[in-house]
Amino acid sequence: MASSNLLSYAIIGTGAIGGYYGARLKQAGCDVHFLLRSDYEHVKNHGLVVESIDGDFALAKVHAYNTPSEMPAVDIVIVALKTTHNKSLPDLLPLIKPGGAILSLQNGLGIEGAITQSLLDHSINVPTILGGLCFICSNKVSPGHIRHLDYGKILLGTHDDSNQLCEAAPLLESLAADLQRAKIPIDTTLDLPMARWQKLVWNVPYNGLSVVLDATTEEMMADKGIRALITTLMEEVVNIANAWGEHISPGSQRGVSADVITQMITHTETMAPYRTSMKIDYDEGRPLEIEAIVGNPIRTAAAVKVAVPAMTMLYQQLSFLNERNRAQ
Amino acid sequence: MASSNLLSYAIIGTGAIGGYYGARLKQAGCDVHFLLRSDYEHVKNHGLVVESIDGDFALAKVHAYNTPSEMPAVDIVIVALKTTHNKSLPDLLPLIKPGGAILSLQNGLGIEGAITQSLLDHSINVPTILGGLCFICSNKVSPGHIRHLDYGKILLGTHDDSNQLCEAAPLLESLAADLQRAKIPIDTTLDLPMARWQKLVWNVPYNGLSVVLDATTEEMMADKGIRALITTLMEEVVNIANAWGEHISPGSQRGVSADVITQMITHTETMAPYRTSMKIDYDEGRPLEIEAIVGNPIRTAAAVKVAVPAMTMLYQQLSFLNERNRAQ
Repeated sequence: MASSNLLSYAIIGTGAIGGYYGARLKQAGCDVHFLLRSDYEHVKNHGLVVESIDGDFALAKVHAYNTPSEMPAVDIVIVALKTTHNKSLPDLLPLIKPGGAILSLQNGLGIEGAITQSLLDHSINVPTILGGLCFICSNKVSPGHIRHLDYGKILLGTHDDSNQLCEAAPLLESLAADLQRAKIPIDTTLDLPMARWQKLVWNVPYNGLSVVLDATTEEMMADKGIRALITTLMEEVVNIANAWGEHISPGSQRGVSADVITQMITHTETMAPYRTSMKIDYDEGRPLEIEAIVGNPIRTAAAVKVAVPAMTMLYQQLSFLNERNRAQ
Repeated sequence: MASSNLLSYAIIGTGAIGGYYGARLKQAGCDVHFLLRSDYEHVKNHGLVVESIDGDFALAKVHAYNTPSEMPAVDIVIVALKTTHNKSLPDLLPLIKPGGAILSLQNGLGIEGAITQSLLDHSINVPTILGGLCFICSNKVSPGHIRHLDYGKILLGTHDDSNQLCEAAPLLESLAADLQRAKIPIDTTLDLPMARWQKLVWNVPYNGLSVVLDATTEEMMADKGIRALITTLMEEVVNIANAWGEHISPGSQRGVSADVITQMITHTETMAPYRTSMKIDYDEGRPLEIEAIVGNPIRTAAAVKVAVPAMTMLYQQLSFLNERNRAQ
C-alpha cells in the first residue's frame, strides 16, 4: 500500500484524536504505528473502526504496540496524549529518523515548549517540533472504536523556541501532502503561539464552564448570563494574548482580534449540542487538562500584568472539581 | 399559659426558621399563630416537633391556619418565608395591632425596603419594620418537624427608610424580652443595613459556591484555591459595603471591617460540615434566594461603582443553575 513518497508515523495515544487521524493516514496508505495502553490487546486483534461524517471505515489489521522500544523509527511522532500525561512522554517516544519531527496535536498553551523541555531533561536530542490545532468533534466510544462527529481540520505550525514567527519546517510540506491525501483538511500558520491563543478563546470558556455547570454548549448559549460570562472569559484571553504578543514581539501587532469573540459565539450557536472534551474527561473520571488550557494562560497573564478575575475563579473551581473527581 | 405582658405573634412561613423560633416563643408561653401551606393539615392535627441542641420538645397543639384572614390581629408578624415569595407577602399578612410591627427573619439585602414597598403598592399602612439576622443551622426534616443543629442567635435592628442608623423601636424591648424568655439568644444593632452587609460576607461565598460546586463548607475549606476564591468574594462584599456606607452617610465610617474576613474564615474552619441553606433549597428543587443574597449587592456595587467580577460570575452561574433546576 505505502508509496515511497509517504512519511512514516508513530501515534502516541490512540484515542479520539490520535485514533482518528492515525486511522485516516493509514487508510491513505501511510506506514502508521500505534502505541496503545489499555486498548492494546483489542486493537492488536481487531484493528480500528472509525465512524465518520466523512465516511465510515475499518482497518482490520494495524501495527499495534504496547512498548515504544518495539516500534520502528519513524519520520513523525504524533503526540495525541492528554497533556496531563506529558511528563511520561520521554518514556513513550520511539526513535525518530534523521530530519524527522514530533507533532503535538494537544490542546492548550506552552505545549511545544514543555515537550522540548522534557526531552532536554532526559538528555534526548530535540527534533523539529510541530504543533497542530485540531478543530474536530470526535470521541472514542469503545476500545479501537472512534466516532468522528463533526469538523476535522488541523492548523499546522512549526515551533520556535523564542516564540517568534516561524517558517514551515522542511518536513511540513510532506506532512501536509499526506494529511490531504488522508482527507484531513489542513491549514498552516507561521504564528503557532498566537494560533494557540486564538483556540483558547473558545476552549477556556466552553471547556471550563461545561464542567463547572455540567452543561452542553447549547445549554450555555441559551442562557443570557452565561453568554455574558463566556464573553467576559473570551475578552480576558484576548487581553492576555495581545499583551503577550506586544511583550514578546514589541510593535509587531501580533495578537488576537476582538472580532474573534463575536465569530466564535455566532459559530457556537449554530453548532450541534456539544459535550466538550474537558466535560468528557470529567464524566469519565480522567484528569482534566486544566493547566494547559487555563493555568498556563493565567500564569502568562501574571507575567504580562493583565487582570483575569473570571479565568482565575474558573481555574479555582475546576481545580476543586478535578481533585474531588479524581479522589472518588 | 400566656401572661398579659407577652406579645402575640403570627409566623408567616413555618419552616426551618419560622417553625423553630415560633415554637420556642410558644413554648415560652407567648400567643403564637402559625400560617402554613403544604404542612397545614399535619400541623393542625399533630402540632410541632423540635429536635434541638438546646433541648428537644413537642407542641401537641398549636394555632395553625391556612388563610391569613382567619388569624387574629397580633403584635408582631414574623416573616420567615424565602425572599423568593416576598411578592405574595401582602396577601399573607394578618391584621397587625396598633403599635405592632413586622419582623423579617429573611436573608439578604434590601429586605425591609422591599417589604415596605410591597405594602405601599397594595395601599397597606406600613407598620414598624424590624429586621432580624438569624445565625442558626436548622432544617425542616418533615412536616411540622424541625431539627435545630447549631447556633441560634438573632441580631435585631429597626429599619429606617433612608438607611440611616436607627434607634430601637419601642416594641423592640418587649420583643427582646420574649425572645430571651424563649431561650433565643439575641443581640441588637442600630445599624441594620450594615449588619446585613456583614452577614453577606459569609453568605455570598458559602451559599453561592456550595451550589455551584455541590460542596459542604468543610469540602470548600479543605481546598486552597477555593479558600482563596472565598476570600476574593468576601473582599468584594466588604468593598461594596464600605463604598455604600460612605455614599449613604459620608464621613461616618459606617462599613464592615476587613478583619471580619479572617474571623469568618477561621470560624468556618471549626464549624461542623454544613450544607448551606441555598444548597438545601437547590437540592429540594426550590427557587434560590439569588437576588436577595447576590443580585441586590451586585446592583448596589454598580450604583457605587465598585468592581465585583467574582460576584458577577457567581451570580451568572447561580442563575443558570437555578433556572435549570426549576425547569427539571
